[in-house]
Amino acid sequence: MKNFMEPESVAIIGISRKTGPGSFNLMESMIKFGFSGKIFPINPNATEILGKKVYPNVRSVKDKIDLAILSTPREDTINCLKDCVAAHIKAAIVVNQGFADADSRGKEIQREMTEIARKDGIRILGPNTLGVLNNFKDFTTSFMPLSKEKAPVGLICQSGVFFVGARKFSGMIGKGIDLGNACDIDFYESLKYLGEDPDIKIIAIHMEGLNEGKEFLSLAKKVVKKKPIIILKTGSSETGAKAAISHSGTMAGNYDVYNAGLKQAGVTFLEEDGQMMAAVKTMLNLPAMKGNGVAVITFSGAAGIMVTDALERYGLRLASLSPETIRILAELSPDWMPLGNPLDIWPAVMKHGTQKAYCVALQAVMNDPQVHGVICIAIAPMMPEFSFLDVSEALNNIIEELPCKPVLFWLYGPNPEEIGERFEFKKRMMTYPTLEMAAWSLSLLRDRHSCLDRENNKLWTSNSVI
Amino acid sequence: MKNFMEPESVAIIGISRKTGPGSFNLMESMIKFGFSGKIFPINPNATEILGKKVYPNVRSVKDKIDLAILSTPREDTINCLKDCVAAHIKAAIVVNQGFADADSRGKEIQREMTEIARKDGIRILGPNTLGVLNNFKDFTTSFMPLSKEKAPVGLICQSGVFFVGARKFSGMIGKGIDLGNACDIDFYESLKYLGEDPDIKIIAIHMEGLNEGKEFLSLAKKVVKKKPIIILKTGSSETGAKAAISHSGTMAGNYDVYNAGLKQAGVTFLEEDGQMMAAVKTMLNLPAMKGNGVAVITFSGAAGIMVTDALERYGLRLASLSPETIRILAELSPDWMPLGNPLDIWPAVMKHGTQKAYCVALQAVMNDPQVHGVICIAIAPMMPEFSFLDVSEALNNIIEELPCKPVLFWLYGPNPEEIGERFEFKKRMMTYPTLEMAAWSLSLLRDRHSCLDRENNKLWTSNSVI
Repeated sequence: MKNFMEPESVAIIGISRKTGPGSFNLMESMIKFGFSGKIFPINPNATEILGKKVYPNVRSVKDKIDLAILSTPREDTINCLKDCVAAHIKAAIVVNQGFADADSRGKEIQREMTEIARKDGIRILGPNTLGVLNNFKDFTTSFMPLSKEKAPVGLICQSGVFFVGARKFSGMIGKGIDLGNACDIDFYESLKYLGEDPDIKIIAIHMEGLNEGKEFLSLAKKVVKKKPIIILKTGSSETGAKAAISHSGTMAGNYDVYNAGLKQAGVTFLEEDGQMMAAVKTMLNLPAMKGNGVAVITFSGAAGIMVTDALERYGLRLASLSPETIRILAELSPDWMPLGNPLDIWPAVMKHGTQKAYCVALQAVMNDPQVHGVICIAIAPMMPEFSFLDVSEALNNIIEELPCKPVLFWLYGPNPEEIGERFEFKKRMMTYPTLEMAAWSLSLLRDRHSCLDRENNKLWTSNSVI
Repeated sequence: MKNFMEPESVAIIGISRKTGPGSFNLMESMIKFGFSGKIFPINPNATEILGKKVYPNVRSVKDKIDLAILSTPREDTINCLKDCVAAHIKAAIVVNQGFADADSRGKEIQREMTEIARKDGIRILGPNTLGVLNNFKDFTTSFMPLSKEKAPVGLICQSGVFFVGARKFSGMIGKGIDLGNACDIDFYESLKYLGEDPDIKIIAIHMEGLNEGKEFLSLAKKVVKKKPIIILKTGSSETGAKAAISHSGTMAGNYDVYNAGLKQAGVTFLEEDGQMMAAVKTMLNLPAMKGNGVAVITFSGAAGIMVTDALERYGLRLASLSPETIRILAELSPDWMPLGNPLDIWPAVMKHGTQKAYCVALQAVMNDPQVHGVICIAIAPMMPEFSFLDVSEALNNIIEELPCKPVLFWLYGPNPEEIGERFEFKKRMMTYPTLEMAAWSLSLLRDRHSCLDRENNKLWTSNSVI
């Protein structure tokens, strides 16, 4: 995968002579993205593009080429790949559509590509792919504009929509591999690469079909102990499955066989597209949750009830707060206030102000041995006018001294983006768009602990046997 | 309700002498919000607050008072309400907590309040409430800062969190009624008021418990034919139900009896807090969907598959596109492209550009009699650099000439907020944060049509009998 992810020299076969807005010129976007290696444009009908000498064929390039990127009509694909083999190129990305995603002729060409990859020592990514993204090396083969962020998030997907749409999907990507129709390079190899990559701490996967299920399961079992793996499997409906076959030409079948094993190993599966972002930020930043007991701190009784409903849906429960915690909160609250969990601190706020009440409450529940994780409800006011309502700074000032338990926030009010960033400043508290999402995310941390804990117990058992 | 929603004179009983940031001074926030009627501050320990003469008691005010707002310690509540009765005040809002939401003494006081409301001709909203919000009259009794928008959205809730958190809940509120513990004014009267209000086109409800279920059901059946009613019922879990009793002192029991009837009448029920915003914007702006057939237009096969999965979950189906629609799209697409639904137009985009391909595709499916609603997937690029990828303006230019069917968008890319606003400019196309939410929202429009259609059929049948 190194030739794909961090090449020093790249040939772009079938590069367009058109440049500028709307041309989708790959060389232009690659240079703009910051690639500092050598680029060899290949086009028999041009001599110079963007000031670079154009070659008629990869064979006429005398330098070593790490990676070839093919944007040629599908009928030229096999000949171009053969040229790459002749030029001793070890890695090729086939960008275009029209293969197993299309008609019988396309399927035939893709079979020939697989043959070449198996026999001739060249590895192929795609077809029907934006290729790769490596923000740690300022490298991408995407002709679509992408955001750049050195995030420890690795993405494996079967569509460029997850590269271009990262902000709506995983939230961020540090390195990405778009398998497209996966005629050769597949989930196994991509997971192996990202699993061993020290830049990457968490792996997000979009999967339409799984071809090498047994190997993938066996590898995932190892990787997931070090790095969370999150999978959005699509094509789960009957019509969706049919559409998946016609999209990337991959079959869901093998996936179904290995799904239970992957779940048992601790791989996280999503139900819908909106969950990936929350899952990534949660498992990347917050500690695993060593039990099932949740404390809820809220300015609003109604929101406390909503989160209680949601916790039950995800198999979490409201912790019975210890007498010490109740005593501490009772000191702040009016006498008539019934104290329990959810902990409604608005009456305490009216007496002592938002910041003092919130800090005391969070300290108390975090120190409570019955509590394994905390969901907090707070206000996102307009700043600086209503800064007295914002508790983000006060809580960030104390959070590092408190026991290491997950703290998840739902903010209400007119300014959730700005205040959300303030809460997440030290990456010790995360914010969520809905109470439902906060409760679900917390359940992932409980599952993460189970996954790691099973492993520890197994090690302990095997050691004790010895 | 008119005394509550659009009073010309207001007494604020128990007003604080403290003003400025953090004081939560109700008179201050009311003036700032733009209330132009008379305000009579009542506090026996002050003579002047914010330059206004302070009265020791409502009885000492000689002018007519439409509405009294009580922010007094709970022990003073009954006496203050009796003063209001003596001063011929017909409406009172009791803001503070500490009643049925608290201990047995609180419950007793609340029972007395109900008695006064029944016997003495004064109507009471609350206790434990932020009161009302009427953006059409620049009036609110909220001591918390609220956004102002003359939106045709009416909200009935049992907590101020929905006033302050409108941006995260209903998206906007034009008029709001916070019932709090609902000792007197309840869902029935609030729904009646908003149902008859010409400023309001849609009604969003947060409900913990329902006391007058039979009357409410009978009223909702009528109102929902004119205005969509959307209910988030909380306290559905066992622990959540207990928490609801301790929060607002209302019981869920009666609700359960009437839930099926409300659903059958066409009232929309939500599963979780994140759905309200999508439900409101959908039913406010888009037409009902006169069938089950959905066309999906997409730049990305993978996204098409995801939306297909989601459609199946909500009982919608991919329409079989008519030969004419396929013929029109085939003209734009390469020969190898298998055309169907979802309609992947990326190959057409590569040949003809985003805007032409998208306009032709949308026109074709909107004119297709098999299609009752459309989900579209498009890009949200950074502007103005990548404006050639944005189809919002091109589609808004043609949308008004097309048949009136719902069109829902999911945008991917780095700039969903700005581009989302551009898409929604004419309020004929709406955008959604996830594909799941787009599919679910479309299902609401199918249900809305069923609701209206049943009514039309009933009318027709009874006419034909005559």
